[in-house]
Amino acid sequence: MDAEARTATRSRENTRARLLDAAAEVFAEVGLDAASVEAVCDRAGFSRGAFYSNFDSKGELFLALVERSSSEKLDLVADRVRTLDRTAAPDPSLLVPQIVDVSLGGMEPRLVSELRTQALRDERMAEAYLRLQDGIVERVRVIVDDIRKVYELRFRLPITEVAQLMVDLSDATCERAAVEGLGEAETTRLLHERIGQLATALLDA
Amino acid sequence: MDAEARTATRSRENTRARLLDAAAEVFAEVGLDAASVEAVCDRAGFSRGAFYSNFDSKGELFLALVERSSSEKLDLVADRVRTLDRTAAPDPSLLVPQIVDVSLGGMEPRLVSELRTQALRDERMAEAYLRLQDGIVERVRVIVDDIRKVYELRFRLPITEVAQLMVDLSDATCERAAVEGLGEAETTRLLHERIGQLATALLDA
Repeated sequence: MDAEARTATRSRENTRARLLDAAAEVFAEVGLDAASVEAVCDRAGFSRGAFYSNFDSKGELFLALVERSSSEKLDLVADRVRTLDRTAAPDPSLLVPQIVDVSLGGMEPRLVSELRTQALRDERMAEAYLRLQDGIVERVRVIVDDIRKVYELRFRLPITEVAQLMVDLSDATCERAAVEGLGEAETTRLLHERIGQLATALLDA
Repeated sequence: MDAEARTATRSRENTRARLLDAAAEVFAEVGLDAASVEAVCDRAGFSRGAFYSNFDSKGELFLALVERSSSEKLDLVADRVRTLDRTAAPDPSLLVPQIVDVSLGGMEPRLVSELRTQALRDERMAEAYLRLQDGIVERVRVIVDDIRKVYELRFRLPITEVAQLMVDLSDATCERAAVEGLGEAETTRLLHERIGQLATALLDA
């Protein structure tokens, strides 16, 4: 790639990042329904042309937002797993901090819930939503598998099903906590408790 | 209760049942957003006055609909459990048909998803949604506990958490199947597979 092409790519990534930042702010303020493409463009300081050269619809913008935050969290967890103490005694509770917060659940339950509702109505949104979910489960699977290898653990279920269960449990717990109006600290405590219990139960002694 | 009061109660129950039947039809045809109180009243042949003497809002009507179908399914499962063969060998896979289909997941994932999205926005809907969910988990708990006693099974987690996991897993599986556009047969097959695996993994030998 020459210098000009690199600059163009950087500029495009920058536009995309600013649109996502603006979308996060506007969503937090007014919710998905009231968050218009126009409001997001105004906040980011871009034209609607710049928007539509990056995203096909409002739904795809908000899915990209969920994807970005989940990806950042998964990177953090993968880093933590890489530095695990391989000489420590295997302890199922060590699994917990590694896998808490890595699912869709951790990301704005209200946004995720509204996007899922849209995915049930709209085929394109459905495809994008399923691609995102599959990507998250696959990344959790790799993380759980790395932990399994480090501590020489044995699960009572195939590792892919363990990962899918963790993601499902985390989603359900976060969504329910959001309906109950629980704060972040209490939600995280619940997640640790439930995922810790399940991880322990699914491990062979 | 005298004869007149009994007739009044029956008439009220009849009105309520007809409004719920109409709501199920209208929802299936146009979805929750487009399903107006007016359309439901027209379908049932009642005035809006009759509607509002039974339900406070459209959201409460549709929650009552989910509640009715979940209650019917749970009654069926409880009946099946009562007739389990107490002399047969304990077999974890026997748990599966008993607990599949008993959660919110089995009930119109699109309706449940839209109601949950509303519950995240509206405090009254949140209360009604949580009451419904708690009721379902409690009924599943009783069913799992009955099966546990009949076959003298031991779970690796507290029975309430087993029930909550079954409901969460069932909800997630049904909702994902709906986004994927899977039919009822394939969704049921997936539910059997995932709940069967989990039930087996959570049982002590």
